[in-house]
Amino acid sequence: MSAIDKLSPEYRRLLELPLYGHLGTIRPDETVQVNPMWYEFDGTHVRFTHTTTRQKFRNLQHNPSMSLSIVDPDEPTHYLEVRGMLVETIPDPEGAFYVHLGERYGKPLGGTPADAADRVILVMSIERTTKQ
Amino acid sequence: MSAIDKLSPEYRRLLELPLYGHLGTIRPDETVQVNPMWYEFDGTHVRFTHTTTRQKFRNLQHNPSMSLSIVDPDEPTHYLEVRGMLVETIPDPEGAFYVHLGERYGKPLGGTPADAADRVILVMSIERTTKQ
Repeated sequence: MSAIDKLSPEYRRLLELPLYGHLGTIRPDETVQVNPMWYEFDGTHVRFTHTTTRQKFRNLQHNPSMSLSIVDPDEPTHYLEVRGMLVETIPDPEGAFYVHLGERYGKPLGGTPADAADRVILVMSIERTTKQ
Repeated sequence: MSAIDKLSPEYRRLLELPLYGHLGTIRPDETVQVNPMWYEFDGTHVRFTHTTTRQKFRNLQHNPSMSLSIVDPDEPTHYLEVRGMLVETIPDPEGAFYVHLGERYGKPLGGTPADAADRVILVMSIERTTKQ
């Protein structure tokens, strides 16, 4: 049974809603970085929009470990953490996935993003979950 | 000028309010962990309640790096990340700081926590900030 199959609907819902997750990565100097991120769960992986020019991308080239923490908006002492790694980086040179996430989160971009040429989709595996 | 002194009131406010921060640490196997945490900023350091028996404590014995990400509740595309390290661990054998944080966050514990004997205060330095 996979880590995803073990999730109850109550916690799986946190992966499916357009919430702000906090993504942890490890910098090349062995310090930790955490940033809020838009995301989309495709039933197997978690997908993020990012660019190849930013620190998180460099971090993931050095160490593919990723952890996403999501708080339940209805009861903030409940949360889900999913841990895995970067398994694929998909070019998104029109920024289409960024545009899609902007709409999903109610923040439409109103056109192609200026950094579209550098845009990629980060695909994260889910190997472990912890919750409270 | 310290990283804290450089913060505008708009972002310093995120450290001062009783929000849910997401704390990143690095596990001994070089994977990343992120969890929501109550916190209190004392003007210099960020303080958390924790126990000596839990994974985050073991992580910090191995690598003291810490990063706390806080989203602006009024505009979730704004956030503050503070990065630093564990600089002190203060025993809290009555769980008094845990009780204090419970009150600060509107979740009073109603007495001494069951794990009081293992309770500690984690004191995090602030060395860098990033914001959006």
